[in-house]
Amino acid sequence: MTTLGILGGGQLGRMLAMAAARLGIDCHIYCPEADPPAGQVSAAVTVAGYDDETALSAFAETVDSVTTEFENVPAATARFLAARVPVHPSAEALEIAQDRIAEKSFLNGIGIDTAPWRAVDTLADLTAALGEIGPRGVLKTCRLGYDGKGQARLNGPEDAPDAFAAMKGAPAVLEGFAAFEREISVIAARGTDGTVRCYDPGENHHSEGILRTTTVPARIDDATRAAALAMAERIVTELDYVGVIGVEMFAMPGGTLLVNEIAPRVHNTGHWTIEGCAVSQFEQHVRAVCGIPLGDPARHSDAVMENLIGDDINAVPALLAEPGAALHLYGKGEARPGRKMGHVTRLVTG
Amino acid sequence: MTTLGILGGGQLGRMLAMAAARLGIDCHIYCPEADPPAGQVSAAVTVAGYDDETALSAFAETVDSVTTEFENVPAATARFLAARVPVHPSAEALEIAQDRIAEKSFLNGIGIDTAPWRAVDTLADLTAALGEIGPRGVLKTCRLGYDGKGQARLNGPEDAPDAFAAMKGAPAVLEGFAAFEREISVIAARGTDGTVRCYDPGENHHSEGILRTTTVPARIDDATRAAALAMAERIVTELDYVGVIGVEMFAMPGGTLLVNEIAPRVHNTGHWTIEGCAVSQFEQHVRAVCGIPLGDPARHSDAVMENLIGDDINAVPALLAEPGAALHLYGKGEARPGRKMGHVTRLVTG
Repeated sequence: MTTLGILGGGQLGRMLAMAAARLGIDCHIYCPEADPPAGQVSAAVTVAGYDDETALSAFAETVDSVTTEFENVPAATARFLAARVPVHPSAEALEIAQDRIAEKSFLNGIGIDTAPWRAVDTLADLTAALGEIGPRGVLKTCRLGYDGKGQARLNGPEDAPDAFAAMKGAPAVLEGFAAFEREISVIAARGTDGTVRCYDPGENHHSEGILRTTTVPARIDDATRAAALAMAERIVTELDYVGVIGVEMFAMPGGTLLVNEIAPRVHNTGHWTIEGCAVSQFEQHVRAVCGIPLGDPARHSDAVMENLIGDDINAVPALLAEPGAALHLYGKGEARPGRKMGHVTRLVTG
Repeated sequence: MTTLGILGGGQLGRMLAMAAARLGIDCHIYCPEADPPAGQVSAAVTVAGYDDETALSAFAETVDSVTTEFENVPAATARFLAARVPVHPSAEALEIAQDRIAEKSFLNGIGIDTAPWRAVDTLADLTAALGEIGPRGVLKTCRLGYDGKGQARLNGPEDAPDAFAAMKGAPAVLEGFAAFEREISVIAARGTDGTVRCYDPGENHHSEGILRTTTVPARIDDATRAAALAMAERIVTELDYVGVIGVEMFAMPGGTLLVNEIAPRVHNTGHWTIEGCAVSQFEQHVRAVCGIPLGDPARHSDAVMENLIGDDINAVPALLAEPGAALHLYGKGEARPGRKMGHVTRLVTG
């Protein structure tokens, strides 16, 4: 029996654990929070800090390999464990994805376009950056932002002081406004043998910085689709990445693609693969990090995935009754605003 | 948070627990065997005997409702728990399904045909029964048989002594030979409100008494299909049943249907619903026994489910590489002959 260790205990870990179970693999969840959603479907749970070397050592003894379910696991934790047991993705990949400047520098360095950006440590930096890359953009903390947190939108230079104050002194990056036609993402996987498999790009709609829906296929032409897949393959290969990664892109007028960000983990925009494919992103990630050959990422059906955020949970009775709706609830107690409580996938058939 | 107690810890309990998790419901497994497959994906496990009233009482305290994942849970256990917490299916339904004579008497009593049968307690009973219902048939122990165990085939009166000896003195029933065209099954569900939902009949192929494949749809005409669904609905309604039930039938030349047996639980011939439907038989059962309205049993795709039995497990590397194959492994250590190790479902698309 193989045991997979997962750092992090949220809904992504929960869905990873269920996919692992389908392959007969046990999971051991490690996270600082008590009673994690992923623990309810896993063989073992360790509740301890990411810097608790005693607990980490004991955890490493019980597992055959380790992965992460969110990108902000300290790279030092991954590095400590990697001296004891295989860890995917690597500390290096986590470090790049955890810092927006490192990420954009990496992407630009391998020839992949992003929206224009500038590092911002002072208000003067921000004012100068707005002059260089245009008056509109989003200022983001370099680290620890997700679901729209740690972000401030600027519609002109007059917004600079408030936006800068919102960073609370943290190193930040100004991302220039990208007048995209649509947001798409590629869920890519790379195995320990270097094989890359990508799911077809999905089209994403966000609201208030949080993903609302993903629809596959995205409404892009064949050339753009091929370029998106090639870009994702280039990223995972250059990172020497193992596992599933989410690559968010802006499809610009004229067919250009800009990478918005990369998430070194299973990705909300890939949840549709549970119903749409024989091998979901979760199973694909488990395969990759356990050294099992990757599976076929082809989808048998088109699909629309809709997140249930905060009060959306009140729609559950209607969703339970809706023909064709595949409902996923994450076992979270309290429906706070902006909290991802579950999702629903509808296959587009017939 | 709802907690569902499950009596039994095998692969059916494992898949029930995963379906429950998808709805945000925790599971507590209760079974006598240590380290049950279902326990690896459940929030809690109690390892204790079905007659351990102290353990059963404590278990009942922790759960909101109780169900069973195999039909041979003692009815007394269900009755003991039912005094403390809702239990579905009921002790009465279990008692009927646990005894082939009670089952056939119930079916015949509500006007549903079975193959001819006779109770057999002595070799003289068997000889007389063969004279009455024909020289070919299968002698089965009344209780505790599954997957071809406790069965002896008879091709003529000369086989009677060996067949009778194989029962080892247990009460038995002779089932007359049914020259069926095909074996089908209906997976039916009934909710606490009496609503009945049936999946389309599947066509089953057995070998050595063990299910090998289920294909949906079954190759039956519309009238036979309607009759099969009506028969399943009549059975669950007359039983005042709550939960999913598997109804195995013989489709005879000319369109007659005989019920072979009923299994008061999720059923191997319904595993295809995980990939083929928005709401699987496992989720449907969880909904029924937790008092949640039943979901839509429509399938979005045709499907073929193949069991992996014993050494079939050696095909796993090929199955992992096969496009479109959705693989399920049950986390069992040892691949003994006849042991169900997993299954694979292939959707029939395009």
